Amino acid sequence: MTTTPPTDAGSASTGPTSGHLNVAMIGHAFMGAAHSQAWRSAGRFFDLPLRPVMRVLGGRDDVRVRAAADRLGWETTETDWRRIIERDDVDLVDICTPGDSHAEIAIAALAAGKHVLCEKPLANSVAEAEEMTRAAQEAASRGVHAMVGFTYRRVPAVALAKQLVAEGRLGDIRHVRAQYLQDWIADPEAPMSWRLDKDKAGSGALGDIGAHIIDLTQHITGDAIAEVSGQLETFVKERPMADAHAGLSGTVAEGAELGRVTVDDAAVFLARFRGGAVGVFEATRFATGRKNAIRIEINGSKGSVAFDFEDMNVLEFFDATEPDETAGFRRILVTEPTHPYVGAWWPPGHGLGYEHAFTHQAVDLVNALAQGVEPTPTFADGLQVQRVLGAVETSSDTRTWQGIPV
Amino acid sequence: MTTTPPTDAGSASTGPTSGHLNVAMIGHAFMGAAHSQAWRSAGRFFDLPLRPVMRVLGGRDDVRVRAAADRLGWETTETDWRRIIERDDVDLVDICTPGDSHAEIAIAALAAGKHVLCEKPLANSVAEAEEMTRAAQEAASRGVHAMVGFTYRRVPAVALAKQLVAEGRLGDIRHVRAQYLQDWIADPEAPMSWRLDKDKAGSGALGDIGAHIIDLTQHITGDAIAEVSGQLETFVKERPMADAHAGLSGTVAEGAELGRVTVDDAAVFLARFRGGAVGVFEATRFATGRKNAIRIEINGSKGSVAFDFEDMNVLEFFDATEPDETAGFRRILVTEPTHPYVGAWWPPGHGLGYEHAFTHQAVDLVNALAQGVEPTPTFADGLQVQRVLGAVETSSDTRTWQGIPV
Amino acid sequence: MTTTPPTDAGSASTGPTSGHLNVAMIGHAFMGAAHSQAWRSAGRFFDLPLRPVMRVLGGRDDVRVRAAADRLGWETTETDWRRIIERDDVDLVDICTPGDSHAEIAIAALAAGKHVLCEKPLANSVAEAEEMTRAAQEAASRGVHAMVGFTYRRVPAVALAKQLVAEGRLGDIRHVRAQYLQDWIADPEAPMSWRLDKDKAGSGALGDIGAHIIDLTQHITGDAIAEVSGQLETFVKERPMADAHAGLSGTVAEGAELGRVTVDDAAVFLARFRGGAVGVFEATRFATGRKNAIRIEINGSKGSVAFDFEDMNVLEFFDATEPDETAGFRRILVTEPTHPYVGAWWPPGHGLGYEHAFTHQAVDLVNALAQGVEPTPTFADGLQVQRVLGAVETSSDTRTWQGIPV
Amino acid sequence: MTTTPPTDAGSASTGPTSGHLNVAMIGHAFMGAAHSQAWRSAGRFFDLPLRPVMRVLGGRDDVRVRAAADRLGWETTETDWRRIIERDDVDLVDICTPGDSHAEIAIAALAAGKHVLCEKPLANSVAEAEEMTRAAQEAASRGVHAMVGFTYRRVPAVALAKQLVAEGRLGDIRHVRAQYLQDWIADPEAPMSWRLDKDKAGSGALGDIGAHIIDLTQHITGDAIAEVSGQLETFVKERPMADAHAGLSGTVAEGAELGRVTVDDAAVFLARFRGGAVGVFEATRFATGRKNAIRIEINGSKGSVAFDFEDMNVLEFFDATEPDETAGFRRILVTEPTHPYVGAWWPPGHGLGYEHAFTHQAVDLVNALAQGVEPTPTFADGLQVQRVLGAVETSSDTRTWQGIPV
Repeated sequence: MTTTPPTDAGSASTGPTSGHLNVAMIGHAFMGAAHSQAWRSAGRFFDLPLRPVMRVLGGRDDVRVRAAADRLGWETTETDWRRIIERDDVDLVDICTPGDSHAEIAIAALAAGKHVLCEKPLANSVAEAEEMTRAAQEAASRGVHAMVGFTYRRVPAVALAKQLVAEGRLGDIRHVRAQYLQDWIADPEAPMSWRLDKDKAGSGALGDIGAHIIDLTQHITGDAIAEVSGQLETFVKERPMADAHAGLSGTVAEGAELGRVTVDDAAVFLARFRGGAVGVFEATRFATGRKNAIRIEINGSKGSVAFDFEDMNVLEFFDATEPDETAGFRRILVTEPTHPYVGAWWPPGHGLGYEHAFTHQAVDLVNALAQGVEPTPTFADGLQVQRVLGAVETSSDTRTWQGIPV
Repeated sequence: MTTTPPTDAGSASTGPTSGHLNVAMIGHAFMGAAHSQAWRSAGRFFDLPLRPVMRVLGGRDDVRVRAAADRLGWETTETDWRRIIERDDVDLVDICTPGDSHAEIAIAALAAGKHVLCEKPLANSVAEAEEMTRAAQEAASRGVHAMVGFTYRRVPAVALAKQLVAEGRLGDIRHVRAQYLQDWIADPEAPMSWRLDKDKAGSGALGDIGAHIIDLTQHITGDAIAEVSGQLETFVKERPMADAHAGLSGTVAEGAELGRVTVDDAAVFLARFRGGAVGVFEATRFATGRKNAIRIEINGSKGSVAFDFEDMNVLEFFDATEPDETAGFRRILVTEPTHPYVGAWWPPGHGLGYEHAFTHQAVDLVNALAQGVEPTPTFADGLQVQRVLGAVETSSDTRTWQGIPV
Repeated sequence: MTTTPPTDAGSASTGPTSGHLNVAMIGHAFMGAAHSQAWRSAGRFFDLPLRPVMRVLGGRDDVRVRAAADRLGWETTETDWRRIIERDDVDLVDICTPGDSHAEIAIAALAAGKHVLCEKPLANSVAEAEEMTRAAQEAASRGVHAMVGFTYRRVPAVALAKQLVAEGRLGDIRHVRAQYLQDWIADPEAPMSWRLDKDKAGSGALGDIGAHIIDLTQHITGDAIAEVSGQLETFVKERPMADAHAGLSGTVAEGAELGRVTVDDAAVFLARFRGGAVGVFEATRFATGRKNAIRIEINGSKGSVAFDFEDMNVLEFFDATEPDETAGFRRILVTEPTHPYVGAWWPPGHGLGYEHAFTHQAVDLVNALAQGVEPTPTFADGLQVQRVLGAVETSSDTRTWQGIPV
Repeated sequence: MTTTPPTDAGSASTGPTSGHLNVAMIGHAFMGAAHSQAWRSAGRFFDLPLRPVMRVLGGRDDVRVRAAADRLGWETTETDWRRIIERDDVDLVDICTPGDSHAEIAIAALAAGKHVLCEKPLANSVAEAEEMTRAAQEAASRGVHAMVGFTYRRVPAVALAKQLVAEGRLGDIRHVRAQYLQDWIADPEAPMSWRLDKDKAGSGALGDIGAHIIDLTQHITGDAIAEVSGQLETFVKERPMADAHAGLSGTVAEGAELGRVTVDDAAVFLARFRGGAVGVFEATRFATGRKNAIRIEINGSKGSVAFDFEDMNVLEFFDATEPDETAGFRRILVTEPTHPYVGAWWPPGHGLGYEHAFTHQAVDLVNALAQGVEPTPTFADGLQVQRVLGAVETSSDTRTWQGIPV
């Protein structure tokens, strides 16, 4: 990206550096920790054409952002994201903030010539996502690229599933069933957080986790959802307030005020794919006992695949061209050197964890930027997911089927 | 039921017998074989107040019904079901025919004072089911009882699930997800059969297997579906004709004529239960690699259960009142003497198979009849399932949500 | 077997009957119930050349044996097994007594020209088993046949495993690991029973359940164990006495006397197979939480199979000739019509239970007798298992490796 | 450890640094990559009293070690390990070389006042391990500490298993069954490597992977193996030679010379624990289809645990104090903040991977050093494992039971 050697001396550095990709990250909560580990690890396991440098961490509170930078390994900090996109020593802006600020930051960063990696969902509304996509397309014409962080695409078992579909091993796709099951607010006493506030989060289970299974199933099948009939549900409508900064692990004070939950606890919808497949989707934070169960099963005329993130190193594959006698779902341990991404890591049977997909995302992004090709998923991909999310919400409100414009 | 001793001498026998329950079964295909094994086995493992006697087998073709009676162990045969309900030596009529004849036979049998066990789905239309239910209610006032064969209720793991819900171990039910997945016609070359003909079968996957998961989820939760939004799909619209009698295993002649598939290959629907739970249902014959996967997962505020018929001796149970450290889905091997029905069979770990639920059905029916109480599921239960099936069809046709009348 | 028609009139019948196989069973506890269901069901699902007739049930106590015959469906009873083998209307004697009476009954029955099915283990000592085998070989020369009841061979998934090995799908066999895990006496307060008394039972876990995994692994691999190093263990050396007839479900009186456990609670041994495979075996009644876990895994140069009876309708198969990318253990649901025995039962996915293997055993035995071929496993097979059991005991006593004579 | 600030300037740095722990690592193959990621990540997720600094990487070949240091993130390099232990800017020596050099390096490093982390197995012979243990005990008296890298102890599910045993949840331990199953040389054409050469590796499957299950079972149970009867097997005695540096992924040239395999391909042994538990162990590189299946099951009088590294985020736990009705093996997803180590990482259900246990090892080691307490497992623990390994070898050679001295 840049042409002079990096210094390792922190904020004194002012210019772009040769053979390096200077990264600024905005936001330092859960996603920030995952992205930091990815930027730190990518070049240690993969041969990268550019070495990522963890240049700047952005956060609103000076004390907290400095502590986070120290912990997470960022050289310098900023408390105003506008300062970050003005800096010459930043090549890429990695946006890990809540969805309500994605559009403003991403559009400004792209305008300033910075590549952008934006966490999902792309935005809190279709309108914002459209604006971002236009900005990304305009930037692309200048060689500035944007990517949205549907990280789970880079779990090796998911990448293998896509590959099997692409190779025709499943034949015509007839059924898509996808669930994203969590239970972290199944307890009515779990506290309010920004994730339960529509203004911040845009939506609840639908946008937070439903977005992932929409993207994953479209990605794996290579198809797109054409129309939906959905239903959103908020089981617990008021919750005790917790410290604004406490996030997922927030604790609740005795006699805490109640806050109004303005997002969905659960979202379910039927879908029809353009290619004729029938889809059933469910995203919920109330599936007691399920912690991060991203379950995808796809049935085609020649085979099926099944995946569950709670056993993330495994892909089940049924090959209907086998004789009946020995046909069965194969539990493929996706840890072979021939499997996507795996060769860079450990020997067979030595599984990967949650954060590895973030490293793969960083690797693919760096490679795309170095080669000058568009990284995927693009903002247009993110917009299409946003349109499905919007259609599900409208469908739920109007109790009608809703089409998704191409 | 009857007052004189049974003879074991076959068709010469003419009268009712004391301490026995004289059974007539109509139909002798797949369901007939399962019911026969149930009538034969029930009294060998369970203490029954009445001993079932396999008195008459009914079938249209004389040669075939005689061969079937010999194979399946029925004493006598009839080729006209009307003759059966006229016979004095018949206490109970077990209807194992396709759905289009259920109403006529059942209503006539009840009118003739015969108890009735009727295979599911109860009928091919709501109107028929209503008429049957009225007949059953009238008969009940005369001490003549009717039951519909939602057999899977009597799988021990299912019965245990219901028990755990009834004991409050799951708390408030929030999610019901149910799938009935088969793949026996996923191959477009699989032949036509009466099960794919709307006139005979009423509906396809929806009525044949969807009916089971509607009944099971309502049974386990003790709740009822209030409204649905559904979609039916026929992936393969024409199929080669096979021999009319070939059934599931029918083979197709070279250059066979094509027959029109007039039922659904797959049915999916969203549901709202009266108690507020959100349901997602899927019944299909196109889930490549899934053979008889009846999968039910129910999430409540205090726990969850999960069941898959492909591992039918197991119920998974998550108890959210456990400390996080040791909480997890328990794989309960439902083979303990304390589990429903199991004490009559084998020691722990010695699992049961598909047909055992039919034996349990026979046992519960005989006990109810001996005690003069109404056996369940009743025809009214069957009617309610029929109404859900009807609502799903209407919803699919009209692309609207449909309520189910109480 | 016999030449005149059967009567259904019970003990008045005196002669052999044409087209039928008159069966006498001795013993009516757990095994008796399983065998009865097998004799009753075999001809209902399979085309048999001879129809089994459940002619006589033998037991020591007249009241109890009559009640059992009524419950289990036997026509007549005897209280002295010697009377049974004198009866003309008995073609086959099915021995379901404890091991200490196997030799005497079997040898006498064979001498009297009755075919014999003998429960496993064949005997309580190698010497007895040798005598029985000699008697069987002599009888065979007269067309009278003997079979030992290693029933689990006839579980379809086990039969499929053997078939895959025989077809060369596993290549050279290198590892055999076999466990038979139960926990029914893990509780030190579980009562004494004849199964814990060496005089009656011969041995404990070793002979009762270890015998099964010795037979199964030799059967599946087509190989034989050449030498062993073993260790027997009795964890709980005294137990409260229960009613002598109570068996597995015996209850213990307050302040019951203690009885001495004279058999092993657990047996473990290393084995070398003649073909070079390395074996590890474990049989125990103290594997808390495991109920009837017969687990067999066999690794060859080209593939592997794994089986667990607690999920008895499944065989896992790994095919190492697959490309790494899609290789994985396949969960074969052994419920296809092409699978051993399965075509006679239900459609795919409708699993079988514990007792079905007994039915398959009856079917294979009847077919062998009708064809005049030797049924397997033979008494010689049972003797070979007995020799392995003996070698394990000697090895444990002497703490040396022990060879098994060919 | 040290008293002046670290510089980040690489090899120019000469002195110890305050608040930091200067680490030197020797060896940079598979283990080196895992240890590097651990040293890099530990302080990013855990609050450490000392910040690890990746100061020096040692390797024999200058070009290769420099490339490795660049890739793995080490500041400086050395080609002679003796130079490393002379350096003042090294506080801890992390030994990742083959077993034949462990003793010499570790003893010298401890003598030089450097803490030592040594990969397992501790040495290639009991004699070496004894010498190392004496050196470690002497060093400990000077505040210099040694630890052996039985990393799997720090997999959260394993740590939870140990905790449950320690809390008495399993009662008296009766059965230990442990398997470490791999298949990377099941193919006879897989090339020779140093791991198959007794001079380098000491032993084969026994020491390489058997050592892990010996340590793990003793660690979890808190008990020690008292005696063993074992058998080693080399299925393939000659293999084609590969490039000496190619390691696991080595390729074989056409017509390559054959090298003699001098270690075991598989090791099996029976064990008796001091507390009376019966153990069965199996370590093999020939378990076709098993990639890194570390399977441990422990049965006690009150409960059982089961673990399989191929599903490493799960511990199965059976609690026999539960009523039979709801008892079952619980699939505990060991990803809760209350589980060992997990709180530092991701939300529930977001699993960890293979290398995380190395990070936990680094964290525990840094904490122990900062607190001046002895890190575990100690060299004495490593010696005890070595004695078990030695006893198994002797047992296999002499075909006798062998005791392990206390």
